[in-house]
Amino acid sequence: MTVNLKAPVPAHILPIPGVRLGIAEAGVRKVGRKDLTVILLDEGSAVAGVFTRNRFCAAPVQVCREHLSQVVATQDNSQVRALVINTGNANAGTGAKGLADARATTEALASLLKLKPQQILPFSTGVIMENLPVDRIVAGLPAAIADAHEQHWVQAAEGIMTTDTVPKAYSAQVVLSGQTVTITGISKGAGMIRPNMATMLGFLATDANIDPALLPALATDLANASFNRITIDGDTSTNDSFMVMATRKSAHPLITSWDSTDGKTLRIALLSVAQQLAHAIVRDGEGATKFITIRVEGGKTAEECRLAAYAIAHSPLVKTAFFASDPNLGRILAAVGYAGIHDLDQDLIALYLDDVCVVQNGGRNPSYQESDGQRVMKQSEITIRVDLGRGTAVDTVWTCDLSHDYVTINADYRS
Amino acid sequence: MTVNLKAPVPAHILPIPGVRLGIAEAGVRKVGRKDLTVILLDEGSAVAGVFTRNRFCAAPVQVCREHLSQVVATQDNSQVRALVINTGNANAGTGAKGLADARATTEALASLLKLKPQQILPFSTGVIMENLPVDRIVAGLPAAIADAHEQHWVQAAEGIMTTDTVPKAYSAQVVLSGQTVTITGISKGAGMIRPNMATMLGFLATDANIDPALLPALATDLANASFNRITIDGDTSTNDSFMVMATRKSAHPLITSWDSTDGKTLRIALLSVAQQLAHAIVRDGEGATKFITIRVEGGKTAEECRLAAYAIAHSPLVKTAFFASDPNLGRILAAVGYAGIHDLDQDLIALYLDDVCVVQNGGRNPSYQESDGQRVMKQSEITIRVDLGRGTAVDTVWTCDLSHDYVTINADYRS
Repeated sequence: MTVNLKAPVPAHILPIPGVRLGIAEAGVRKVGRKDLTVILLDEGSAVAGVFTRNRFCAAPVQVCREHLSQVVATQDNSQVRALVINTGNANAGTGAKGLADARATTEALASLLKLKPQQILPFSTGVIMENLPVDRIVAGLPAAIADAHEQHWVQAAEGIMTTDTVPKAYSAQVVLSGQTVTITGISKGAGMIRPNMATMLGFLATDANIDPALLPALATDLANASFNRITIDGDTSTNDSFMVMATRKSAHPLITSWDSTDGKTLRIALLSVAQQLAHAIVRDGEGATKFITIRVEGGKTAEECRLAAYAIAHSPLVKTAFFASDPNLGRILAAVGYAGIHDLDQDLIALYLDDVCVVQNGGRNPSYQESDGQRVMKQSEITIRVDLGRGTAVDTVWTCDLSHDYVTINADYRS
Repeated sequence: MTVNLKAPVPAHILPIPGVRLGIAEAGVRKVGRKDLTVILLDEGSAVAGVFTRNRFCAAPVQVCREHLSQVVATQDNSQVRALVINTGNANAGTGAKGLADARATTEALASLLKLKPQQILPFSTGVIMENLPVDRIVAGLPAAIADAHEQHWVQAAEGIMTTDTVPKAYSAQVVLSGQTVTITGISKGAGMIRPNMATMLGFLATDANIDPALLPALATDLANASFNRITIDGDTSTNDSFMVMATRKSAHPLITSWDSTDGKTLRIALLSVAQQLAHAIVRDGEGATKFITIRVEGGKTAEECRLAAYAIAHSPLVKTAFFASDPNLGRILAAVGYAGIHDLDQDLIALYLDDVCVVQNGGRNPSYQESDGQRVMKQSEITIRVDLGRGTAVDTVWTCDLSHDYVTINADYRS
C-alpha cells in the first residue's frame, strides 16, 4: 500500500549530462531480479555524501568514507567516477570479511573501468549479517557497465529497490544565468527508516557547475531538511547513504556561494527534489496508509521541537490510532510529555489536526467536536501541529501510520 | 494472548493485616464493570510512591505528589489512609478542570472516611483527554467502602484492569526475627508501557515494620529494578504510579536499615514480588506472544547497557522478527548500533540467543547455524544477551514481541 505515490513517468525523469546508469541481474539473493546498479560519472564531476550514524555501520559505508577522504586528501584528478549498488544483501554485521568483500567489489569495477579503487563508491542494501556473494556481483559488473545510459534513471530506481513497492525518482529544472540546469534523484527505502544522516539510499545528481568545495556541506544541509526528517519505524539503518553528484557540465558561471541569485535558485530546486525523494520513502513506508506531517512550533530550540516531533512520530499508539482513523489524540499529548523536554509546562500546549484546534492550554479545547477530528483523521494526508508555547523555534518531521501490513511485511521479510 | 501468565489463584494471594480493599461499579465508561477501587490503610501505615516522568502527567498524579509532600512536611499523624483508583478515564490532558475533579474525588472520600483530603491518594487510568465523570465516581464511593475487606486483593487486581486480559497479583512471605511477614501486590497495564518511574499502576503492601523514613528510597529502588526495566511499546504513560505501603503491624523489631539480616531478607522478597508484577505486565502485553529478557553486559556503564537494551526492546523490526520466530538477528545489531553509544566499537560485539552464540567480534560466528537460532526463536521465553566488550557493567530489560494483535487492539481501543 502506498499513500498518493505513483511510479515515475519515464518521460518526466530527465537525464543529467555526464551521468550514465546501468543495471544487471547478479543473482545476489533471488534470481531474475535486477539487483546490481552502476552509476558512471564523467571526469570533472564532484561528489559528496552523508552516511548513517549507526555505530554498527555496514562495510560499504566504511569503504565509502575511506575513499571519499582519500579523494579529498590527494587533491589530484582521481575524483569519484563510479558508484556500485547491490540489493539483496546489506554487507553489514559481516566483520573483516565484509570489509574485504566491499573492497573486492570496488577493485573489480576499477579494473573494468581503468580507474583506481578509491574512485569507486560501493553501496549495499538488504539483509544484515550474511556474507556478500562477491563473486556473483563481480560477474555481473560487465553487463551493468554495458547497460549504462543517460536515460536509465527509472531503471536504476527499480534496480535499488528492496521492500519498496514503487520506484522513486524525481526531476527538476531551473535556469541559471540563461542556462537550463537539471536535477534528478532516486531513492529507496520502506522499512528500517529513521535516517540519522541520510536515508537507506539516495542519489541526487545535477549538471550544475557547483564549486566542489561547496558539496560536502550541501549534502549535509539537504539531508537535514529531507531524509533526516523522516521516520517509518525509528530503526536507523546500518547502510544509510545519501550522495550528491554534480557533473558541472552546464555553461552557467561557477556557483561559489549559495547567496548568489543562481545559488539560491539552485538550492531551492535541489531541496525540493531531495524532499520529494524523502517523502516518497514515507509514502511507500511498509504498510503505510497515511502520510503524516508533524510540525512542532513554539519551542525554545529547534532541537526540542524535533524531539517532540519524533516522539509523536515513533509512538506506536499514535501510529495505530492514525491507522484506525480514531481521534484518540491524548496519545499525542502523552508522546510530547515524554519527549525529553524536562521543563515543559503542559498548561501551555496547543494541538491542531490540520485546521482543527483539539487542545488549548493543555486541555481539551471546549469547542472541539470529535466529529471534526474524525473528519481529518480519515484523510490520507494529515498535518499534526503542536504549539509548545515557550518560544519561536519550529521543526517538521514526516512519518506514516502503523498498520497490520507493517507487521506482516516484517514478520515475513526473509521468508 | 498472554505469555505463560495465569490468573492468580485467590488462595495464593495473601491478605496484609491493616489493608482492606473494596470494589464497586461506578459506570465511569462502561456499565456493568467494576471500575472503582478503594484501598484502606490502618492508622500507623507508611506510604511512598514513584510517579511518571511524563511532563504531561495526569491530574491525579499531580494531586498524589502534592498530598505526599504535605504529609511528609507536616510530620503529624495525618498519614495516608486511603487510595482511590478508577479505570475508564485517565483524567490526563484535562487541564484545570481535571485537577479540580481529582481534588473533588479525594474530598468526597475524605468526608466519608472522616479524614483530611491530604490523607487520600487518587489514581486514574483509561482514555486520555476526556473529563472525569466525577459525580459517578463520588456516587460509587460508599459501595466501594462497604465492600472493603482484607481478602479482596484479587478483586482489586480485576478492578484496576483496562486492556489487561488477566488480573495481576502476587504474594510472598518471609520470616523476620521469628515473625512471618507477608507481601502482596497488584499491578495493571498492557499498553502505553515504558515506565519512566513506575508502571501504569502498581500497589505493593506489606505488614513489615519498616521505618517510614526508608520507604521513599525503597519505592524508587524497587521501581528501578522492576517496572522501570520493562517496555511494551515505548510509550511512557501520563499516569504511571507505583505505591509501596507498609502497615507495620508485624511484631518483629523495626527495620531501620537494609543491611541487617531482616532487612536483606525482606528486600529480596519485596523485589521478587515487584519483578513478578512488572513481568506480568509484559506477559500480558498487548498482542504479546513472547516474553523477552534483554541482558546487555560488558558496558562501560550500566546506563549505556540500558540504552542498548531499550534500543533493542523498542525496535519494531526486532519485535516483529521475534513474533515471526525468524532469526533475522542483524536487526539486533542495528539497534545496538543506533542506541547512542557514540564510541562503540562494532568489532568487539558478541550476541547470544539463550545459549547460542550468534555473533562474535562484530560478525557472524562461523559456527552459528541458523537452525540453532530458529530453535530458540520458537520458544515463548527468550533471553537476548549482548556483550559490548568494553567494560563490566550490566543491565537488563524485559519486553515482548510486536504482533498483529497489538495493531488490532490499539486501532480499536476506544471503539
